Amino acid sequence: MQNYLKGINQELLQKASKIKLLITDVDGVLTDGGIILDDKGLEYKKFNVKDGLIVQYLKINKIKTCVISGRDSEAVKNRCVALGIDFHYHGITEKSVKLEGLLLKLGISFEECACIGDDIWDLPLLAQVGFSAAPADALPYIREQVDFVSSLEGGKGVFREVSDLILIAKGLLDPIIHQAIQP
Amino acid sequence: MQNYLKGINQELLQKASKIKLLITDVDGVLTDGGIILDDKGLEYKKFNVKDGLIVQYLKINKIKTCVISGRDSEAVKNRCVALGIDFHYHGITEKSVKLEGLLLKLGISFEECACIGDDIWDLPLLAQVGFSAAPADALPYIREQVDFVSSLEGGKGVFREVSDLILIAKGLLDPIIHQAIQP
Amino acid sequence: MQNYLKGINQELLQKASKIKLLITDVDGVLTDGGIILDDKGLEYKKFNVKDGLIVQYLKINKIKTCVISGRDSEAVKNRCVALGIDFHYHGITEKSVKLEGLLLKLGISFEECACIGDDIWDLPLLAQVGFSAAPADALPYIREQVDFVSSLEGGKGVFREVSDLILIAKGLLDPIIHQAIQP
Amino acid sequence: MQNYLKGINQELLQKASKIKLLITDVDGVLTDGGIILDDKGLEYKKFNVKDGLIVQYLKINKIKTCVISGRDSEAVKNRCVALGIDFHYHGITEKSVKLEGLLLKLGISFEECACIGDDIWDLPLLAQVGFSAAPADALPYIREQVDFVSSLEGGKGVFREVSDLILIAKGLLDPIIHQAIQP
Repeated sequence: MQNYLKGINQELLQKASKIKLLITDVDGVLTDGGIILDDKGLEYKKFNVKDGLIVQYLKINKIKTCVISGRDSEAVKNRCVALGIDFHYHGITEKSVKLEGLLLKLGISFEECACIGDDIWDLPLLAQVGFSAAPADALPYIREQVDFVSSLEGGKGVFREVSDLILIAKGLLDPIIHQAIQP
Repeated sequence: MQNYLKGINQELLQKASKIKLLITDVDGVLTDGGIILDDKGLEYKKFNVKDGLIVQYLKINKIKTCVISGRDSEAVKNRCVALGIDFHYHGITEKSVKLEGLLLKLGISFEECACIGDDIWDLPLLAQVGFSAAPADALPYIREQVDFVSSLEGGKGVFREVSDLILIAKGLLDPIIHQAIQP
Repeated sequence: MQNYLKGINQELLQKASKIKLLITDVDGVLTDGGIILDDKGLEYKKFNVKDGLIVQYLKINKIKTCVISGRDSEAVKNRCVALGIDFHYHGITEKSVKLEGLLLKLGISFEECACIGDDIWDLPLLAQVGFSAAPADALPYIREQVDFVSSLEGGKGVFREVSDLILIAKGLLDPIIHQAIQP
Repeated sequence: MQNYLKGINQELLQKASKIKLLITDVDGVLTDGGIILDDKGLEYKKFNVKDGLIVQYLKINKIKTCVISGRDSEAVKNRCVALGIDFHYHGITEKSVKLEGLLLKLGISFEECACIGDDIWDLPLLAQVGFSAAPADALPYIREQVDFVSSLEGGKGVFREVSDLILIAKGLLDPIIHQAIQP
């Protein structure tokens, strides 16, 4: 485990250790940005099993998850339900405004939120949260606004990497691995 | 923003600053060239959300958009409508001829057009416009005919990169980003 | 053939030469981890023809195959049947327990099993078998637990590479190739 | 055009200049090897528009095309018909035997055939033809059996690159490009 995320500095780990809510965009983060369309108007999205698997471990460790998407897609809704994402909002362009209401209700501050985003619509939220992240293939002017640029491209496990980082910062990943190897 | 598109020379920015209409091919530019087929004859295409998001900002800034495809696909038509592409033509092999009519109607010269293409059918148009571009994975004999080779492969945001370049050349991208961060 | 898998040391070949059963995870190994969903709730998976082709050669050479997946998918079941996979189990989180029963029935020891996995749920099994492997893009804390990290990413032929390695260790691949060239 | 395929030696161009029939495998050559399946048993394949576009230019220049696949797929059949592939055979494992009959009928020798393949089933045919090729991501023991290893992976335009190479060897590609730029 020592070499995993080894470039992470202490300040970043400090920020990550405070996170109570992990917020993520969908297209370009949970997916590679691909909008697959057929001739009949049906839409398809490609998620990554690596991102899905970690949700249960976040849940066990009381880190809440939130999906907020600028687009409105049945596939995304179904995926959120299947994974047990705590809060999910779809077709939201004013993401920052939407989140304010949720945080008030939960009694969580923006500093206790991490957010992963990859494009202009995510900038307000990325600027407000305590820990901001973007995929390796986000646009340069998004990447330069965030605390952490993932080593992975969108759809390749960016959400997983940020989740792992938060779990590491809280000292929670090692026990998960050890218990899996020697139950 | 300073490092984005930093290899761009002044002559190219000069050309880009004059653009009033951005024309793009579909397969190999908006997609990775993939033609997905099922056993029942239905066709699927994979677009990129990064390309889609910038269309609204081009629209606000009075840069018109045109999609012109050598193939005829319902998926492409639906995508063009959903994005608000100003002009879209499908199943056109003589692209240059088709565009002449449009430009005459709009009162726009070829020099005020940018065009992104990736294959032989695009060459006549690429040779005529004021600013020509190709994806990083276009064939070598296409790439050597254009003003600008994108840093990205087809389907990974080539249209977005060219759009950003035009917006930068016109001094319009920085305000978009700043307004997103501090609304 | 000399340069193929040339980094493989003698100890690894020794382990591979004993394998009677090759066990593999699905998502992230036979696929790139992609969970493709449409708006109607239908799920799609992308396998690789390279992985499929070698199954028949394993069969001819009395190496049994087993697919064990944490998820439950009709597509995976159909693929297993089409390829003639000897044993396949779906929706299994306690993979190690499930395998114990099978091995007892077959009279095969864990040391005579190879296993390919890419995530936490695979760790117990990877820790028990005689030869463990992971895709090149498995998480770092999975990769450091296995005997062999494939040169290929999930969905690009990881199962094929491990199969080839076992066939090479047993001296069985060269005859297959020679017979194909000069039947 | 000078730098395109510049690593090609004279002997290879000599071989390519004699080709009257270009034969290709499907999975792993025209596609990236991906077998996409849904829960209902429907199969999907992803082709590349670059491979499709060149077929018409081969046709004009009297180079015949043949698709021969070890698998049987409606999607492949439809794609062959749509592109105007001259001969296409599906579900053929004994590819070499099948071709013998065709060549006899056409009065074409194996030396006048090029063949692109990527796996064991293609080896007999690759060993017989005048010009053999494989994708960049074919298995090492396939790549070492062919005259030409494409710079591209399966599904990224391997068929196009080999077609271009044949057209270049015959002095036919430059006129196509020049006519497109200055009709």
